[in-house]
Amino acid sequence: MSALPIGIFDSGVGGLTVLHAIANRLPHENLIYLGDTARVPYGTKSAATVERYAVEDAAFLVEKGIKLLVVACNTASAMARERLRREFDVPILTVLGPGARMAARVTRNGQVGVIATEATVESGAYVRAIHEAGGDIKVIQQACPLFVSLVEEGETNSPITRLAVEKYLTGLQDQHIDTLVLGCTHYPLLKPVIAELMGEGVTLVDSAEATAAEVETLLRENALLNEQTATGERRFYVTDAARRFQRIAERIFGEPLAHLEAVEVWGHDRLQKSCQ
Amino acid sequence: MSALPIGIFDSGVGGLTVLHAIANRLPHENLIYLGDTARVPYGTKSAATVERYAVEDAAFLVEKGIKLLVVACNTASAMARERLRREFDVPILTVLGPGARMAARVTRNGQVGVIATEATVESGAYVRAIHEAGGDIKVIQQACPLFVSLVEEGETNSPITRLAVEKYLTGLQDQHIDTLVLGCTHYPLLKPVIAELMGEGVTLVDSAEATAAEVETLLRENALLNEQTATGERRFYVTDAARRFQRIAERIFGEPLAHLEAVEVWGHDRLQKSCQ
Repeated sequence: MSALPIGIFDSGVGGLTVLHAIANRLPHENLIYLGDTARVPYGTKSAATVERYAVEDAAFLVEKGIKLLVVACNTASAMARERLRREFDVPILTVLGPGARMAARVTRNGQVGVIATEATVESGAYVRAIHEAGGDIKVIQQACPLFVSLVEEGETNSPITRLAVEKYLTGLQDQHIDTLVLGCTHYPLLKPVIAELMGEGVTLVDSAEATAAEVETLLRENALLNEQTATGERRFYVTDAARRFQRIAERIFGEPLAHLEAVEVWGHDRLQKSCQ
Repeated sequence: MSALPIGIFDSGVGGLTVLHAIANRLPHENLIYLGDTARVPYGTKSAATVERYAVEDAAFLVEKGIKLLVVACNTASAMARERLRREFDVPILTVLGPGARMAARVTRNGQVGVIATEATVESGAYVRAIHEAGGDIKVIQQACPLFVSLVEEGETNSPITRLAVEKYLTGLQDQHIDTLVLGCTHYPLLKPVIAELMGEGVTLVDSAEATAAEVETLLRENALLNEQTATGERRFYVTDAARRFQRIAERIFGEPLAHLEAVEVWGHDRLQKSCQ
């Protein structure tokens, strides 16, 4: 067993859906969350920039001492997974893998849709991961660049949101998919509107739930579960504007945040190099 | 006269509306533009973070040798104006001042609306600047957090945009304003939809145009105009994802960008301090 916390990072508030799913499934685990709110969003930025940000985020959490790193941002998962595995010794789970494996398991007709940020779609990471997980599956991707802003503004079930969902998803309906991966951690907050448009014949894969299930398996198999009986401690760090984060986070998480602190995560690497 | 360029910065592409207005009015001037696309948007971030980013952006341009610095981002103008004036010797013009002065000049009934990002609205900078410029004017502010994303996604005249414009502006209509300041450099791109909703009785103040007019006055009065007869050189720098910037910029600017380069602007200040 290990009482060390699980470290979870995202570009902003979206990864809280992953933290929430982990906390529900593994209430005794200590959790540390980092939201890089000073540089959010990642999904419209280049691979080189997202990779640099992800390494800085991970370094912050690894320095705190964690037993598992969860990359709760699909864009960072798609763009920085290999680099993170090279740089850090700690076990790493990204949201992208569990979502892809779940989709490959649940599809019946082999037609899977993936909605994600522009950056994630361009990387093709979901297409590769679903093909690795399953057999003969056709993957149809759709970028939904307005969804993150809509969620960050609390527009999760308004006429504007319904129009945006129609705009992006009508094309996927025409492709007769039976499974749709919500390939960005913000998107589960739009689930009711997406489900209504796609109808009962389409299973929505929420990568937050899929990730929480794999976190449990991974900790159990490696005898790393925390066997304390008290509820685990949850600590939240942001790189900017803690007040704004708190407002949105409490809406997502459904309860007040106990420990919330603003921190800096950038430049460590650069400083060391320049001063030597 | 001075052949030195004018430096212009913004968090992303929005400030190109200001560059465009300056280039139209002063075609012989050399212009350098910096878009901080690695950290866009500024309008949802805290004062401390926006101030730090603005100083780094300005330092990059000042180091290139400029005769005038134009802060083409309302959020940076609202939050970092004083700090920039303290740190740099070069003359500085922010988009906020010209927009506020224009609004005070054109209002007839003394009821002025201002639409801007959350950060600009919270700072109250427009309210103070309009009061400084005019007499007895009532200023009604409205934050429009989705507008920047809509413009960045090219949604300038779609059903989604019309719904968002209605959502934010209906309240201002009820206040009988006769003047509306577009207090974010992205917003002029939504002008047709905003004008249609507000009707002919409301004058829209485009701070890009107002700023270009003040740039001309300032250079003329200080004998700093460039008296070459050739068209000025325009150089564009971004901190991330030049390809994406180019696509959006060419849509805004209406022509291909001649010189576009990706650069780093952060950490100079920190590096110096740490290595001493």
